[in-house]
This record gives sequence, C-alpha cells and structure tokens, in this order.
Amino acid sequence: MRIPEGAITTSFRFRVAYIDTDRGDVMHHATYLRYLEVARVEHLRDRGVDYRAFELVQGLSLPVVEVHVRYKQAARFDDALEIKTWLGLANRAKVRFDSLILRGDELLTRAEVTLCCVRLEGKRICSVPDNILALAQLGR
Amino acid sequence: MRIPEGAITTSFRFRVAYIDTDRGDVMHHATYLRYLEVARVEHLRDRGVDYRAFELVQGLSLPVVEVHVRYKQAARFDDALEIKTWLGLANRAKVRFDSLILRGDELLTRAEVTLCCVRLEGKRICSVPDNILALAQLGR
Amino acid sequence: MRIPEGAITTSFRFRVAYIDTDRGDVMHHATYLRYLEVARVEHLRDRGVDYRAFELVQGLSLPVVEVHVRYKQAARFDDALEIKTWLGLANRAKVRFDSLILRGDELLTRAEVTLCCVRLEGKRICSVPDNILALAQLGR
Amino acid sequence: MRIPEGAITTSFRFRVAYIDTDRGDVMHHATYLRYLEVARVEHLRDRGVDYRAFELVQGLSLPVVEVHVRYKQAARFDDALEIKTWLGLANRAKVRFDSLILRGDELLTRAEVTLCCVRLEGKRICSVPDNILALAQLGR
Repeated sequence: MRIPEGAITTSFRFRVAYIDTDRGDVMHHATYLRYLEVARVEHLRDRGVDYRAFELVQGLSLPVVEVHVRYKQAARFDDALEIKTWLGLANRAKVRFDSLILRGDELLTRAEVTLCCVRLEGKRICSVPDNILALAQLGR
Repeated sequence: MRIPEGAITTSFRFRVAYIDTDRGDVMHHATYLRYLEVARVEHLRDRGVDYRAFELVQGLSLPVVEVHVRYKQAARFDDALEIKTWLGLANRAKVRFDSLILRGDELLTRAEVTLCCVRLEGKRICSVPDNILALAQLGR
Repeated sequence: MRIPEGAITTSFRFRVAYIDTDRGDVMHHATYLRYLEVARVEHLRDRGVDYRAFELVQGLSLPVVEVHVRYKQAARFDDALEIKTWLGLANRAKVRFDSLILRGDELLTRAEVTLCCVRLEGKRICSVPDNILALAQLGR
Repeated sequence: MRIPEGAITTSFRFRVAYIDTDRGDVMHHATYLRYLEVARVEHLRDRGVDYRAFELVQGLSLPVVEVHVRYKQAARFDDALEIKTWLGLANRAKVRFDSLILRGDELLTRAEVTLCCVRLEGKRICSVPDNILALAQLGR
C-alpha cells in the first residue's frame, strides 16, 4: 500500500501511552483503532469538516463498517508515531480512510477503515453528503 | 474497609484479559473502573433494577461523581477475580457503591464509587429515585 | 463467511458494558477486538491450551499481525452477545481465528484475526508450535 | 483543592476522542485516568525525568497505589481540555501527583494519584529515588 499520487495526506503525531501497552511490552493491537480514529477526525478538521458539527448540526454520523489492519512492526511505550491519512475511496455508499503508521521512516502499520453514513434521527443509512465527497475531489 | 453488617453484597467474577494488562505485567489501574462498573450494573440487576431500563424507561442516569480506589496487590493476566459490591451510602443526593476486589481470599483492591442522579432530558441533577433508595433499605 | 464444515467452534458469551459504548449509542468498533481476544483465549482454554502457560512456560507468544472486521449490525449497551470462534487457518507461519458475533440469531459482525508466533526471549518470529497446529487437526 | 503556592505546575492539552465518550454523551469516568497518566509522564519529561528511561535504565517503576477523582462537570466529544499537574506530596514511601482538568477557565475534575516505587527486578517496593524527590524541592 503506497500513498496514491495526488492524494491529500494529513499527518497526526502522538506518543504511545503506558495504558496503550500490554504485558507483551508493545502497543495492544486494539489501541491502533483509537489513534486511527483520532487521526481521521483531525484529517477531517484539517480539511474543513468539523466532525462534532457534522453530528450535531448536519445530524449525520459516519459509523465504521469495516476495518482492515496489518501490523508489521510493533510500537512500544513512549514511541513518537505519525499517522498519515488520506481518503482511499469515496462514493455515495461509503468512504474509506487509508493510513500508514510510521515511527520516523519505519512503516509499522497499514490500515483501511471504511465508513458509511447514517442519519442520526432514525438511525437510517443515507448517502454520503457532498462535504465529505468533496474531500476526494480536492486531491485531484 | 470491611463489609458492614447487614449489607447485601453481590459477587461478580471475571478474568483479567490480555488487553487489561500493561507493560508492567499487571492489570492497568484504569481498567479496574471498567470492571467495577460492570459489577455495579450486575449488582443492580441481581437486586431487581435493570440499568438499561433505568435509562431508557425511567429516563434517568447515574453518572459517577467521585471515585476512590486503593490498590493493595496487583492483578495479573488471566487471574480469576471476584468483585464484592454493596451499597455503602444512599440518600436523595447520592449513592455510593463500595467494592472489594479479591483473588480467592486475597484482598487486591478497595473501591468507593459515588454516583448522583441525572434526568436525561435536560441533563439536570435530580433526586435519587425510590427504586434505588429501596436497595439500601432491603439490607436492614 | 460461514462456519466451515468440521470446524470445532467454541462459544463465548458476554454483555456489552457501559464503557464499551460511545456517544453514537453503540459498542465502539475498537471494543470488538477486546472481546474477540477474550474469546480466542477461551477458545484455546476450551481446547486444552492455557494461553498464560503458553507465554510463561513455553516462552512463546501469539501477536496479532492482521485484523479484518466487518460490522453489519450495531451492538448496544447490555446486549447479550455470543462470539463463535474457530481456527480458520493454521500453518507453521501463522494461525487465523475466525469469528462470528451474534445477538441471538442475528449476525452482527464477522472477524478474521491472524497471529504469528514469537519466542519471547529475543522477540524473534518462530514456527507455530505443535500444540497450536494440533487444534486445526482435531476438527477434521 | 487549589494549586499550592510555589508548586511547579505543568500543562498538558488534549481533545476528548470519540472512543472516550459513552452513551451518556460524556467522557467516560475511567478515561480520565488515561489522560492523567499521560499528563504525569509529560510532567516528568518537562522536568527532566524520562519515564521510559526510568523503567529501562534505572530499573524502577512507579505503580499507582491510590486514585481519588472528583468529577464536577462532564467533558464532551472534541472538547479541548487542559490538565494542570504538580507534585502534591513526595517522600521516600510515596509520591502524589495532583491535577486539575480544565475546559478553558472551567474546572471539570480534581484528581490525586498516589504512586509508590518498585524495583522491576524482583518486583519489590523500594525507596522513591532522588531524581523523583528532587522534583518536589525545585518548587520551593
């Protein structure tokens, strides 16, 4: 998985917390989903979509329908990591955020997280709205 | 902290999960709050209060306003633990659930978790309702 | 994804905890990995492999190298769920545990979690040992 | 609880993540312990103690022996919060980190977290070392 040409990539940096580790002395595999989510929210913010307002004002939500993560190298306590995120796919049915997690130049993890769109009132699936689809077009 | 005479105590049993541990090879101190909460919900269920219905039907919630936990002995991966829970205090303003966490006969942790009552519509503090206060009286 | 013929399936039951939910009123997508892991440890125990001893006595560990989860229906607070788990694939390089998460008869989630084997001393990848590979053969 | 005169206070800023919330639409009470821990590690770093090296090089650890948290106001998704942390008490037996969690000028939470010192080899309690005690003296 490479970053596709023309993709608008954002970068989110964090340190692995003590609570993120397990007795194997590495960041637990579930914890990656926490930081991938934070990176997604920051990606949206950087590109003009405030996800809190997306839920509260637009009345829409983007629940996760699929995750696919490949762990190549382990992350350890206090490691300074970077998540590069871009929109891998976007259409009326779903959007997919692709990410690489890096420790400096070393690739630790590749992830693809697919979301659909739900209208919070009534909890029905709806079309992905224009302000999300527009994120895909800006990169071209 | 001993279990007071006449207190109605319930018992919740669980095993320490791998994700619950940290690189110090013990259950992380934040994780105790997870299991104390589950033990509280089961205490309520055992004594006739379905907490899901409490929120959905009564429209009330019991948010945590104070926690006080003393960790005496560490818990480790796959340890079979027991949480003994009773109502330590209950009045119109607040209820306090007291717990001991045990590994067999060995006391690991003592905890006091204080909750108030909130009406979900409007998110205003309200009086602790009769079905919660009644839990305190049954023990006498 | 169906349970393949001849697969030895174990069943792990749990209730969705309050802490497992998010402001969307559903179980957060990362939390599934917690319960899938617990279900794996219980699958191993049911079939004769004590994972704590696997790490402490055999000196081996089974870190996660890939997760693929598809969320079909949301789980909610206090839902009583069941995880059916079986060994989807096992060879010297890796083992894959496949799971269905069910609420009664309703399929909520399908998951495939792939693990490799690491010798804890030196943290080097090693062959999946016989007692894990044997789990695959029992089902035939 | 006020910040005592002469205390050296550090500030850690973060945003409440989606995963941090629960179905009550607030940050779950257990999650505060995550951020309080991160704030402690950053407090130590700001004042010259690298906690990773403390464990790996000095061979010591600072496990939590007591937490006392009072939740005054709820935090919500995407709130920008600040944790002010200082050393409330330090002697050979234990150190206590005191914290205020703020949303702008509004006080949300007060917390006191007490740690002891353990030598990792043998897991025996030992005296709090000079480089931790020195943190208390710098503030005078």
